[in-house]
Amino acid sequence: MAFSEFRPLHDNSLIDYIKSVPALSSKIANDFDNLFVKEVGDGNLNFVFIVLNSAGSFVIKQALPYVRSIGESWAMTKERSYFEWLALKEKGRLCPEHVPEVYHFDRTMSLIGMRYLEPPHIILRKGLVAGIEYPLLAEHMADFMAKTLFFTSLLFRTTSEHKRDVAEYCGNVEMCRLTEQVVFSDPYKVSEYNRWTSPYLDHDAEALREDNLLKLEVAELKSKFCERAQALIHGDLHTSSMMVTHESTQVIDPEFAFYGPMGYDIGAFLGNLILAYCSQDGHADQANDRKAYKEWILKTIEDTWNLFQHKFTALWDEHRNGAGEAYLPAIYNNPEVQLLVQKKYMTDLFHDSLGFGAAKMIRRIVGVAHVEDFESIADAAKRATCEKRALDLAKTILKERRKFEGIAEIVSAIRKYES
Amino acid sequence: MAFSEFRPLHDNSLIDYIKSVPALSSKIANDFDNLFVKEVGDGNLNFVFIVLNSAGSFVIKQALPYVRSIGESWAMTKERSYFEWLALKEKGRLCPEHVPEVYHFDRTMSLIGMRYLEPPHIILRKGLVAGIEYPLLAEHMADFMAKTLFFTSLLFRTTSEHKRDVAEYCGNVEMCRLTEQVVFSDPYKVSEYNRWTSPYLDHDAEALREDNLLKLEVAELKSKFCERAQALIHGDLHTSSMMVTHESTQVIDPEFAFYGPMGYDIGAFLGNLILAYCSQDGHADQANDRKAYKEWILKTIEDTWNLFQHKFTALWDEHRNGAGEAYLPAIYNNPEVQLLVQKKYMTDLFHDSLGFGAAKMIRRIVGVAHVEDFESIADAAKRATCEKRALDLAKTILKERRKFEGIAEIVSAIRKYES
Repeated sequence: MAFSEFRPLHDNSLIDYIKSVPALSSKIANDFDNLFVKEVGDGNLNFVFIVLNSAGSFVIKQALPYVRSIGESWAMTKERSYFEWLALKEKGRLCPEHVPEVYHFDRTMSLIGMRYLEPPHIILRKGLVAGIEYPLLAEHMADFMAKTLFFTSLLFRTTSEHKRDVAEYCGNVEMCRLTEQVVFSDPYKVSEYNRWTSPYLDHDAEALREDNLLKLEVAELKSKFCERAQALIHGDLHTSSMMVTHESTQVIDPEFAFYGPMGYDIGAFLGNLILAYCSQDGHADQANDRKAYKEWILKTIEDTWNLFQHKFTALWDEHRNGAGEAYLPAIYNNPEVQLLVQKKYMTDLFHDSLGFGAAKMIRRIVGVAHVEDFESIADAAKRATCEKRALDLAKTILKERRKFEGIAEIVSAIRKYES
Repeated sequence: MAFSEFRPLHDNSLIDYIKSVPALSSKIANDFDNLFVKEVGDGNLNFVFIVLNSAGSFVIKQALPYVRSIGESWAMTKERSYFEWLALKEKGRLCPEHVPEVYHFDRTMSLIGMRYLEPPHIILRKGLVAGIEYPLLAEHMADFMAKTLFFTSLLFRTTSEHKRDVAEYCGNVEMCRLTEQVVFSDPYKVSEYNRWTSPYLDHDAEALREDNLLKLEVAELKSKFCERAQALIHGDLHTSSMMVTHESTQVIDPEFAFYGPMGYDIGAFLGNLILAYCSQDGHADQANDRKAYKEWILKTIEDTWNLFQHKFTALWDEHRNGAGEAYLPAIYNNPEVQLLVQKKYMTDLFHDSLGFGAAKMIRRIVGVAHVEDFESIADAAKRATCEKRALDLAKTILKERRKFEGIAEIVSAIRKYES
């Protein structure tokens, strides 16, 4: 049975659909008698079904033509599913260890069939709220970011490959527009979608709208986001876009993918780790003061950047005589200039990452979409104290980002906002 | 008669072609008896025919699948003709005063039919070599650049319009690759295409290849050229890309057009004016010491930037409540922040323009394509003295560009390299 036009799948139509797709039905040995099906989409945008039996399993992710968490009033193209699939394939090719395998894509149905990330995989953010340490997280995320960003940049690609792919992902414009609105615009103006822990943060939200220097810096970041096609970025790399166990880190949900500034991905991850850090005091209790856990988060922040920097420059060194057109070997082939250009590149990328990371922190406190790290702190006064620290820290990082020379200085700055 | 596949037109086939295209034949009242036809393409890339009789006139420009000045060994897509036509139409719509009207386009034949810029129009560079003053040049070029750059940027356009057009012009990748090679790469490495006034500049050419700080800065400019889709730029806006009279300035040849950094256009024009300035001592003789003319060039450089800045910010002020997505009125609507963002935007653009302008100067002295300003100085020693001044000046501007606060400081720097 073919589905010739888009329709949202429910349990029964879902089974009919799976029966019609061998790439999916074969995963469960064509056995529909003892099938477990559950809708688990807790994100903002899509329906997600787990499908499994004793023979195997997979996940179905279907995009709806509106923002699920807001309702049908906020329309959004389901074509995002196509770009999510494209990006999953490309990132999976570049870093198969940290991207779930895709089994099937149906553009008409805006539907992706992919690996079910079985328990004990959970969304990283939930692990961070629960106070669980992931010893390999920094290593894995550094690996994912280094590979997916390096190999899609002009450090590795030719101009022809680059422009071809930039053009393709220009089609994901609706998702870029959404980011522009909720990250770079709404938090700095009066918007019906904004919310914050009121009345505690009323003044802080207002102060953002009147902070001219901050708005000047946000404009620069927005311009980079809109204009700079540096690499194929995930576009939404916060701590709910990865599922983890102690041994595994799997990056999901690249539906915002496009050619943009690398720092937007790195910043999203680091910024959300800082949010997790700032929320810990709200989760501390007599059984667990979270002090050791906070240290682990700081170490993860520091390790992530340092490992990323190491892996990224190692890839650069390894491929510096390759086809990448940014730094031709005939020009940049002496060790002194190689060192100079890498240092400048990584410093600029670090400052970009800090700026974008801080912007992502701010929008999670005063914008439309909040994070469970704070939302799960029931006591509003306590929550507001955590959020205000994060907000002040983010404003400082955003405005002063060019003064930070390394990630250790960021960790020091985070500690300072403790007291 | 239709031409179903590409073939280079010669005089006879040209007439047959014109007869088959009413948009062209009507311009000459369908009278082929007393037709004047002349091939005048003196550029690097194309054939250009003037066609006229007593009833009217037009120009036919046909792209060939290789670089005309190098030969068939240097292949180049004739699809550039399509992008030239697209850009002529768009820039003509935005600034009809300074872009010749297009009558006809044939993608199969890579052929554009357009207004014949009648005498006394000449290529600006030839006028600069001859020592002719153009009192309206700064005003006209400032107008052209302000309008074509502002109206195709996110200061005026929506993200959707922007990404749609960015994607389209990604197709002009072959021309971008050519620029990358001849402007940002070849001058800084050993290349069979490079040439310079030897032996006088042998050491200078070698010094470029060993100047690590210069190469670091060139890499940053190249990255902006490849990655930053700021506006629809002409892409080759030197002084041979415009035809002028005392009253008229017409910008032609946008076959390198794509979405790139605005500073690349502004820099191309300013850098080529500086080259013209530096060449004047080579053209001085007893009848004309060129002193007054050099002052006029300096004034034109200064006026061009100042008028551009004025016109560009005036357009911004005029349209700041429009659909442009870079600075939403709800965020940037107070005079203080408006001043801040405009000052930062124009300062960044100024520094970009200086960097690109300097890079364009360098490549004209040690790269494949030289300029008539210097080439027409027969005495090699004298020519080399002019070129060396220009080269040293360009290196200083490129490396120190962020220290210049206004165009008057550039004019001072130019004067300093006099002695």
